[in-house]
Order: sequence, then structure tokens, then C-alpha cells
Amino acid sequence: MKKYLITLAAASAAGGALAQSSVTLFGVVDAAVTYTRGSGDGSAHKTQLTNSGNMFSRLGFRGTEDLGGGYSANFWMEMGLQNDSGTGFPSNSNNQASGNGPAGVLSFNRRSTVSLAGPFGEVRLGRDYVPAFWNTAIFDPFGTGGGIGANQIYFSGLGGLVAPTGTRASNSIGYFLPANLGGFYGQVMYAMGENDSNALLPGTRVPSKHDGEHTGARFGYQSGGLHVAIATGRTRYASGDLRVTNLGAAYSFGPSLMNLKLTSELYKESKGSTDAKGVLVGFQLPIGPGEIKASYARYKLEPANAVREPTSSKLAIGYVHNLSRRSALYGTLARISNRNGAAQALAGAITMPGRSSSGIELGMRHMF
Amino acid sequence: MKKYLITLAAASAAGGALAQSSVTLFGVVDAAVTYTRGSGDGSAHKTQLTNSGNMFSRLGFRGTEDLGGGYSANFWMEMGLQNDSGTGFPSNSNNQASGNGPAGVLSFNRRSTVSLAGPFGEVRLGRDYVPAFWNTAIFDPFGTGGGIGANQIYFSGLGGLVAPTGTRASNSIGYFLPANLGGFYGQVMYAMGENDSNALLPGTRVPSKHDGEHTGARFGYQSGGLHVAIATGRTRYASGDLRVTNLGAAYSFGPSLMNLKLTSELYKESKGSTDAKGVLVGFQLPIGPGEIKASYARYKLEPANAVREPTSSKLAIGYVHNLSRRSALYGTLARISNRNGAAQALAGAITMPGRSSSGIELGMRHMF
Amino acid sequence: MKKYLITLAAASAAGGALAQSSVTLFGVVDAAVTYTRGSGDGSAHKTQLTNSGNMFSRLGFRGTEDLGGGYSANFWMEMGLQNDSGTGFPSNSNNQASGNGPAGVLSFNRRSTVSLAGPFGEVRLGRDYVPAFWNTAIFDPFGTGGGIGANQIYFSGLGGLVAPTGTRASNSIGYFLPANLGGFYGQVMYAMGENDSNALLPGTRVPSKHDGEHTGARFGYQSGGLHVAIATGRTRYASGDLRVTNLGAAYSFGPSLMNLKLTSELYKESKGSTDAKGVLVGFQLPIGPGEIKASYARYKLEPANAVREPTSSKLAIGYVHNLSRRSALYGTLARISNRNGAAQALAGAITMPGRSSSGIELGMRHMF
Repeated sequence: MKKYLITLAAASAAGGALAQSSVTLFGVVDAAVTYTRGSGDGSAHKTQLTNSGNMFSRLGFRGTEDLGGGYSANFWMEMGLQNDSGTGFPSNSNNQASGNGPAGVLSFNRRSTVSLAGPFGEVRLGRDYVPAFWNTAIFDPFGTGGGIGANQIYFSGLGGLVAPTGTRASNSIGYFLPANLGGFYGQVMYAMGENDSNALLPGTRVPSKHDGEHTGARFGYQSGGLHVAIATGRTRYASGDLRVTNLGAAYSFGPSLMNLKLTSELYKESKGSTDAKGVLVGFQLPIGPGEIKASYARYKLEPANAVREPTSSKLAIGYVHNLSRRSALYGTLARISNRNGAAQALAGAITMPGRSSSGIELGMRHMF
Repeated sequence: MKKYLITLAAASAAGGALAQSSVTLFGVVDAAVTYTRGSGDGSAHKTQLTNSGNMFSRLGFRGTEDLGGGYSANFWMEMGLQNDSGTGFPSNSNNQASGNGPAGVLSFNRRSTVSLAGPFGEVRLGRDYVPAFWNTAIFDPFGTGGGIGANQIYFSGLGGLVAPTGTRASNSIGYFLPANLGGFYGQVMYAMGENDSNALLPGTRVPSKHDGEHTGARFGYQSGGLHVAIATGRTRYASGDLRVTNLGAAYSFGPSLMNLKLTSELYKESKGSTDAKGVLVGFQLPIGPGEIKASYARYKLEPANAVREPTSSKLAIGYVHNLSRRSALYGTLARISNRNGAAQALAGAITMPGRSSSGIELGMRHMF
Repeated sequence: MKKYLITLAAASAAGGALAQSSVTLFGVVDAAVTYTRGSGDGSAHKTQLTNSGNMFSRLGFRGTEDLGGGYSANFWMEMGLQNDSGTGFPSNSNNQASGNGPAGVLSFNRRSTVSLAGPFGEVRLGRDYVPAFWNTAIFDPFGTGGGIGANQIYFSGLGGLVAPTGTRASNSIGYFLPANLGGFYGQVMYAMGENDSNALLPGTRVPSKHDGEHTGARFGYQSGGLHVAIATGRTRYASGDLRVTNLGAAYSFGPSLMNLKLTSELYKESKGSTDAKGVLVGFQLPIGPGEIKASYARYKLEPANAVREPTSSKLAIGYVHNLSRRSALYGTLARISNRNGAAQALAGAITMPGRSSSGIELGMRHMF
């Protein structure tokens, strides 16, 4: 088989700096066999082929063009993959439930941005992660992917998986601080709901012009083994704003303590008159070519005037065996406990209020 | 980070001509902050993140294989991007309203062709632009993209944005004259509606076998600073054919007149018993690394036996600041005036009949 | 135009073996003008631009990473293309009719897998071809693509084109024997329907937990000019299992007999209480830069207690003219005969029970 190069349509104007202008094709394909079960009369178990147990499956195109003087133009188009069935994920066009796309289609739902970067930082336009998502993803050793170990605060939260702006926002303008601030970093985001100026909440005279409008910020510090970050975000809805605030902290011990890394998160959110709180602790421990990791997360809903506060806790432990820097085999055990009427279950299972759900997954992840 | 090459599955048979066989990944990501407003009681304004203000956002794969003797095999798959939200555009399968795909999905809606080219010209099969679209796109300095300055004839027209064959046709066979005709060029297209031979207009005995069948042609001449082209197209519908004819002309003055370029278009169309006419004049003026451009377009609907002929005019002026050959910042101001009951508004706004709509956009475009 | 390389995000850990780690962009764009007609009162004919007459149109990304010691990690994401209109094909999420995606969207419906290969063979996870599909595709010179000559057993079958697992299964675990078995090869597949453990057939108390669960196997031998393979598959449904078994055999004569290749298939399937049988014979004969090919396939439905057994036969003959190893022009003639109430027609046509359908297609295929 002969090989020849894929070329790009546009030449760089920065002739002498070609080495720094590039387009990159990248992705992850991650699949696992997963068994989850619930408990109680009416509960159900399931065995599935799942995706994204270790890293979220994706396919993307990104590029950077060196403009000289420390400036660059950049784009990033990245789609999520449900590689167990060859489908993808819809995006959301207006940061409101009405803007959800049809299930199972492909879209560049994960990120779709164009940006100008320079000594001043970076201004980014398009669909991107909301700042307050990052702490939930980064400070859980299992992240927020499709695996059974993933951060339970994200899965049971008001402002997590199900909220249109729980992970990303469309129509956003983002600003990122430059990288050279001695370990300090930060970002702010403003995203638009794009409603008509005279829009009303259906059946009412309540203006809903600002529905889906998101503002968020995140600031952090990473140096040596220490990493801390605080983030907050608000999405406006005439039916009640969604507010999320969280704090993440991690410390990586050096070789003297087996390169152990401890992680933690504090989380607080509200939607209208319902509050919620979350807390997480975890660790990652390298073992030869692999890594052991574990996390414990608890999430408590506090509805206004409610007698009971539904609470769910997840304990997860896993092992990742690296075949290379790009490929790994992994296994995870997880268990959710529910109290006060909560009925959270691991994906695929159905459990009864106050009962537990547990599961196991064994999978393979390949990155390119 | 190590780098390695992306390879292609198939080797070229033309071993000695590898340099001329290639597959190209290409695209545009263009985003802008846009404010538009209408006027009159009940009008609405909106601030949005929009896409395609300077060039239409897209992602494509195209390739050519040198077959020797001046012949080549070619393919071109190109999808439109709504990069403000990470979605795309549906295609249309039969050149009729019934063939529209679901909103917001990705498809290779912009172009999807395979072709054989040679000394005879090029025969192209698939989904492609209808010939009569090109003059509307090329002879307006703002083109037909998503920007507020784009050709108003295209946006308010019977045969423009909303018509299934206003821009492109599926199921087409196209022929293009070869490139070496001393500045003359030309193309013809025949596209099929693909109805059953015994199809009837719903609820009638009127045959609709030919619905969605498109025939079109375009011929032009470009030499020195002069560029003129004439085009026509007809799409058959049992409910009334859509006919479009237009003429574009441009002249680029040399350095003696600051490289000024003047553009113009005359436009005429009809759908059933409704006629319409359009006219456009514009200019482009390079200024250092940038360009000033402006256009004025007027479009008049002439319904049969109507007392009033709704008329809309758009005036647009813009500046494009090139950061490189691939990247640019841009700003545009536009205003639509309506008469005789017309109520055209810039995208995002709602205006009242006979009232105006105006807007501003500031954006960034990156090409790869 | 300057050219620069597309880079990949992840570097290989197998530094010394980079030459064997790669990501490949590949595809086929194939289009034809096709005329098909039926016969009898109420029949219809149609002229269309079709796709996939010679090879199925597709766009894919696949890669392999050399892990050392004969092991490799692999991914394969491949979408089908309807390039006549720029659309694609939906996938199916659960191997049941309820899991079909919306028509006309893009998805990686053809294949979506991650795998680990080594001296032991290959374990593959994701959406992949069911083992019993291969004999129907490989032992017909026209395959199972979109062309009018394609294997009629596949098009009129209970377990062919229309069945969710007639071609591929989602949520599958596959195992493939290693390649070095002296011409023997084999694979087994288990795919999950992913229903809740307490699922019931709607409106009944019949458990449907196992609906969409597929098990299949295929074993073959290829050496010299001989190729034989046997395959079987079962998909469980509470409403009646789908069972397919087939046997393919081909022999390629050497230069002494003009490199003639003969092919054949025997086919048997059942869905609930309906049985069906198929048989196919074909040949391929290289002629200079081209190839003549022909096939005859017959398919008979045997409903339980039915007086008549609807039978359809297709005779197809075609010529493929290779312009290069990647590009070809082709023409096909086909005719379907129906008996005992069968009314199979070539795609696009409508024919009456017991009457025939015939057609012609002329097209171009380009592979990259």
C-alpha cells in the first residue's frame, strides 16, 4: 500500500512558522461490558455494552494557526460518540430544554469554537464547557464520563447531566487568562439564550427573554503537587435560576509517598427554591504500568419546606492497566446507597427508593 | 508530542503522479456577536452568537486522483456547520419540501459529489449548487452566508433560502466546460425529483411525477478585471414551477484606482403566478491588510392581480481585517427598509410591515 | 498552495514501531443513474440518481497502534453515505425495531469498534457486522450494496436489509481467530439487546428481556483458488426468533481459464413460524482493465400452512471498467421475476404480484 499525505486547503500566512500551524484529528473510542443492578421489589438489572467508561468517546478536528507576535487563531470541533451503537449525541441550540436536538444523532456537542489567543489570553466563541463543570470533572478520579464510577454529584444533580447548561453552553463568549501567571489560571463565560426580546413564559405574562443566559467564572492555582480551583455559574430561567458553586482541591505526593494523589470537591447548587449540596473525596495511586483509583461522593437534595432530604452516596473503586500511553484496559466496581426517598441507580439499573444499586464494568479505551 | 502521518486507504494507480493525487481536509469556523432589531409595535430585538458572518462555516473532505492523460477522478463531501451550537444543517433528498431532513443534524448538505474530469470538461454526480445560485453569491460582496449583510435577494426571494432548490439540488447530473476556453466558462445541470411515475398531487388527479425536477445553466466570462455571468434555472412543481434568471457583472479596477471592485446583479424569478424582481450594486475596496465593502439590494414581489407590491431594500457596509490569509476579524452594519406591506427583518429580529430593521455584527473567521 | 501535515493528538508509546501505528481516513463515493420499472396495472417506473451501485459509499476513520509483542490496539469508525443527497444512514441502538434512529442522519452505522488484537486473535467491542451477513455479501459478485444487481436474498429476506440485525449488531462482543491458521478463519459474536431485566412484550406478560440478543458464528477456509465459509446467527425476540444459516463457496480459476471466478451461496432462514430458502450462483471474469460479472439468485418464502410460497428470482449482469485501482465506471442490467404472489421490485420501481421488474444503471465509483 502506497501512502500519501492528506493536505489542507489553506496555507498559513506565517510562512516561517509552519511548524506551529497544524490541524489535528483526534479521538477516543472506549467500550466496556457493564452489569448494573438495583434492589427492592420492582428493581431491574441489566448487562450492556457501554461507552466511555474510562474516557469519554469522541472524534474531533482542531487546529491552530500561528499569527506571529505570540498570537494564534484556533478552532476546535469535537463530537461525542456512542460507539457501542455508532451513534452520537445531540447538541442544544439555546441553553434551554426547547433547544435539545433529536436523540442519537451526531453533532459537535462537546465543543465547537473559534478563538483568538495572544499575550492577553484567549477569547473563544461558540459552544464550550461552562466554567463550573470543570471542578466536578477534574477532581473526581473517575471524571464525569459514562463509567459507573463517575462523579455522582454530576449524575444526581440539578445542574449536572440533565441541565442544558450543566456541562456546556452554546452561544458563548469566553475569556481565558494567559498561561504565564505563575500557576494561576482563570476563565469567565457569558452565553446567550437567544430569545426574542418580547418572549413570555408560555401561558403567562412573565418575560422569559433571559432564559438560557449563562454567566460563569473559574479561577485556580496549580503548582508543585497542589491544585485548587473555585468556580461558579448562573443560568437564568423565568421559572427559577440555576446556580452552581464548587471548590476542588487535589494534592499529588511525590515518589516518597508512591506518587499518591488525593482529590476532593465541595459542591452547592440551587434551582428555584430547591437547594442541594455535594461532597467528594478520592485518590489515585500509580502501580507499575497501571493505576488504582477510588472515590466517594455524596449528594443531598434540600427542597424548600421538605421534611426529607433525599441523599445518594456513591463509592467507586477501579483499576486502569495501561497498555501504552494511548490504550488501556480497565475495571470498576461501584455502589450507590440511597436515603430519604432517593432512588439513584447506576446507569441501566432501576432501584427502589432508599435501596442500593451496584455494578461492575470491564472495558478498553483507545485514544488517537 | 510525537507526530505521525494520517495515511489513506487506497493507493493511487498513477504511481508517477502521486504529487497530484491528494485528499484534503478543509473547513471554515466563523462566529460573530450579532445584535438586530425591528421597529413598530410588536417588533423584537435580539443579541445572538451567530455563525458564518464572513464565510459560511463548514467541514469537508475532498480529493482528486490523477488518472493520466489529463483525466482525474474527484470527490467532494462538505457539511455546513452551525458552530455557535455545534450542530449542522439537514439536506433535502428529493428537491421538494417533503424531502427536508430534521433540523439541526449534520449532513453533507453543502456538496456531495463524485466526478470525472478531463479535456472534455467535468461530469459531476450528486448534490451540488444549482447554476443560478452562483451569481447571487458571487456578485454580492457579502455573499449569501449567515451574516447580516448577505444578499437580500436571496433572503426574501421565492427561489432563495427557503426553496428546496434555491441553493442546491440533490440527485443531480452536472456538466462543466473545461477551464481552457480563454476566460469563458459554463455549466448545465439536470436534477431529479425521483417521484414514482404514477405520483399525484395529494387529493387531486394532477400528476406530480416531475415535482422537484431541476434544469439549470450558467455561462460566464472572466478576463482582466471584467467578470460577467448569466444563469437560469427551472424547478418543476405541479403546484407551479419555480423559475429564476439572473445576470451578474463585476469590474476590478487596477492599482490606479486603489484596486476598487464594483459588483452588480439583476434578478428575476417566478413561482406559479407570482413574479419578483431584484437588483443589487456593491463595491469592495482593499485598505492595507483589510477591506471595506458595501452593497445595496432591492427585492420586489409582484403577486398576480395584487394592488401592492411588497418591496424590501437592504443597505450593508462592512470592514474585514485580515490577520492572515486564513483568519480575519470583521464588522458589519446593515439596515432593511420595507414598503407596501413587506416585513423583512435581519435574522433574529421581528419587524412590522413597512417598518425597518437594523443590526450590527462583530466576528472572527478562521479557515483551514 | 503550501501544504502541511495533519497531526494526531496522541503519540505512540511504541516509539520504535511508529511505522506500524497509523490513523487512516478512507471512503468510497459511488453514484449512478438508475432506471427501474415494474409491470402490471398500477406498476410504476422511476429514474433516479442512486448511490453505492458498485461499492457502498462510506466515510471512515480507522487506526492501529502497535503495542509490541504482536499486540495492537485498534479502532474503526465508519459511516454510510447517501451521496446522491449528502445524507447518511441511522444506526440502531438495541438490535430491535424500537432502536432505529431517524432517517437520513449521519451515523457510524457501518462499523464502530475498538479492539485488542494479538497472537490469540482479536476481541472487538461495539457495532459490527453479524457473522452470517458476510457470506451473502462476499459470494455474490454484486455484493449487498445499493446497486440493482445486489444479492436478492438480502433484499427480499426476513433476515436481510430490513431486520435490525440483518447486517450488523450494536452492543456486540466479537472474537476473531488469528490470521495464521493456514487458510482457516473464524469469528463468533454475542450482541446484547440491553433491555431491563423485567421488560415485557407490550400488552402481555411475556418477558422480552432477551429481545435483540444476537449470537452468531462463521468459519471459513481460503487457499489457492478455493474459498468456502459457513455461518449462522440467531436473534432472540419474544415474538419469534430470527435464525439465519448460510454457506458460501467460490473458486477462482487461474490464467489457464481466463482467471474466471465462480461463486455460490445456499441460504436458509426463519422468523417465528415462517421459513425461507435462497440460492445463488455467479461469476466474475476479468477482461483487460475491466470485469464482467453476473449472478442469479432465488429466494422463496415458506409461511407456515401457506398454500403458496412467494418466490422471487433476480438475474443480473454487469461490466466494471477500472480507470485505476481506485476509480471505475460501471453498468448493470437486472431483472426480477416473481411467482406465487411475490411482488419484489428493483429499488424505485413498483411491480404487481407475480409480475417482473427490470432496470439498468450506469455509474462511477471512487475510493480513497
